[in-house]
Amino acid sequence: MRHRLKDVAERAGVSVKTVSNVVNGYVHVRPDTRARVEEAIAELNYRPNLSARHLRKGRTGVIALAVPELDIPYFAELARYVVNAAAAYGWTVLIDQTGGRREQERVVASGITDHLIDGLIFSPLALTAEDLAGLDGTPMVLLGERVEHGPADRVVIDNVTAAREITAHLIQLGHRRIAAIGSQRTDEGASARLRLAGYADALRAAGLDYDEALVAPASAWHRADGAAAMQGLLTSGVRPDAVFCFNDTLALGALRALHEAGLRVPEDVAVVGFDDIEDGRFSIPTLSTVAPDKEKIAQLAVELLANRLDGDRTAPAKEVSAPYRLEIRESTRTP
Amino acid sequence: MRHRLKDVAERAGVSVKTVSNVVNGYVHVRPDTRARVEEAIAELNYRPNLSARHLRKGRTGVIALAVPELDIPYFAELARYVVNAAAAYGWTVLIDQTGGRREQERVVASGITDHLIDGLIFSPLALTAEDLAGLDGTPMVLLGERVEHGPADRVVIDNVTAAREITAHLIQLGHRRIAAIGSQRTDEGASARLRLAGYADALRAAGLDYDEALVAPASAWHRADGAAAMQGLLTSGVRPDAVFCFNDTLALGALRALHEAGLRVPEDVAVVGFDDIEDGRFSIPTLSTVAPDKEKIAQLAVELLANRLDGDRTAPAKEVSAPYRLEIRESTRTP
Repeated sequence: MRHRLKDVAERAGVSVKTVSNVVNGYVHVRPDTRARVEEAIAELNYRPNLSARHLRKGRTGVIALAVPELDIPYFAELARYVVNAAAAYGWTVLIDQTGGRREQERVVASGITDHLIDGLIFSPLALTAEDLAGLDGTPMVLLGERVEHGPADRVVIDNVTAAREITAHLIQLGHRRIAAIGSQRTDEGASARLRLAGYADALRAAGLDYDEALVAPASAWHRADGAAAMQGLLTSGVRPDAVFCFNDTLALGALRALHEAGLRVPEDVAVVGFDDIEDGRFSIPTLSTVAPDKEKIAQLAVELLANRLDGDRTAPAKEVSAPYRLEIRESTRTP
Repeated sequence: MRHRLKDVAERAGVSVKTVSNVVNGYVHVRPDTRARVEEAIAELNYRPNLSARHLRKGRTGVIALAVPELDIPYFAELARYVVNAAAAYGWTVLIDQTGGRREQERVVASGITDHLIDGLIFSPLALTAEDLAGLDGTPMVLLGERVEHGPADRVVIDNVTAAREITAHLIQLGHRRIAAIGSQRTDEGASARLRLAGYADALRAAGLDYDEALVAPASAWHRADGAAAMQGLLTSGVRPDAVFCFNDTLALGALRALHEAGLRVPEDVAVVGFDDIEDGRFSIPTLSTVAPDKEKIAQLAVELLANRLDGDRTAPAKEVSAPYRLEIRESTRTP
């Protein structure tokens, strides 16, 4: 059986506060009282909570990171950085995989269950700003583009500019029929909307037509979706000479479809992705991509959450931007 | 501010038990009392906990899945199946990424913090059976080979037989100089030890010598480690004609190293992995591998945990075995 602070207090014949003082190492406890408490702790095999500091603040020392899907490697990689950044604050990070389902996102945004988590770093897919405004309580930092207009602190990258730059890279290489893979309905994905806008901006700036037939939707962004979209483009007869995939897993699927069609990358079709996941550094060919600074995103999110927890919880929401860079690899580099 | 059951009870002028009865939908509550409670709930914007069923049992409805690394895709894929299997029990699954660190594994094995989780599905890397025996409390199901001899229920696959079969597949194809990538010291990994044993068994059964020079260690099992180990084998002059990598990420790294060395897979060197992660179904070439039934592993683990939570917590630990199959793909299939 698992014992609690009050079991120790009862056995030692002291108040819960006194046990807490002993556990937290406070000096103003009489030596005989301290001895009684320590004896009770030993008898009950009581283990104090994670961290005295959290306890004193009435916290659990646990935060949650809520992401749609862990088998999108971008989120798995981000999770590692968040765990590392949170360690500096003595926080344990528990990860909630919401599946992008509105109901599970509501559960996590409500703090999961009473007092379970101190705060939340949250990448929502289904919840809206209105949903979040209706929830009280859990201090939260938002990641990404889904929820705008300030219901909570937020970390973003400039998706439009990044998408414009990686598309411009393809244009500079001489490509003119540049496809896009990953467009979505507005209610499906804000990242898709912003990346498509950047793609269109780059075409416009280069005087190229925006051709609907070159834009392939993908309601999910897994490898299989990228492969199917690429096959669709190849069989539709639009004949792209390059393709911008809105994430790396789509791009890895596209590479596979091009390979199966007997086309060479980058000689016949150049391919770029977005996210810089580890897979793309080892794929054949390696994948050119937009590399958001995931470590920085994690650090900024953890800092915003820490400031919110220790500071003014009613202060206006802050939005901070994390850097990114282009990683040019074999999929756009003619040998 | 977030309200609790007792705030509702105070405002309605009833006991906490009565509020709980209303929230849980019990019928034996007087209509006027029910109305008062419902009014108080509305005024306070009180949200009942996750599930009335959990509440009644004094539980949080939250379990944890603790794994070493989420950016090992095997664990990310397993996490999705655990989340799905747990949904049938109304559980929220929070995922703890321990990094394989003994201290974090102790925290999670202790239930993270008082009463935070009802139970734990746990793939330890550092903790031993002795460590776990010294911890009271949190009902737990172990995954994998690290902790043996029954301190808790466990789900395994037969690693030795699986490794023997995938090695025998290479032998059947006519390969004779079969390398292994991923061996580890005993304190680093039990999976490595069992897979190496299966590899050695297969060689012995075929009358082939076990050659130390063909066995490459890898203390971590990421792509970069597989690529480095493969490069090492190629430059050492041992000239393998096939390689068994102890997981798929090692194998994907090995594929990359072979590509960079100008060798064809499978014509010059055949490659097999272990885990059947999604990446290997889209890589160029696609990857032959051992495919543990991850969905079944997740279901068995969740069922064992449910039985332990609702049944006899002191009953002897059970061990159940999940199936696997060989997936033969392009990396061992000559076109």
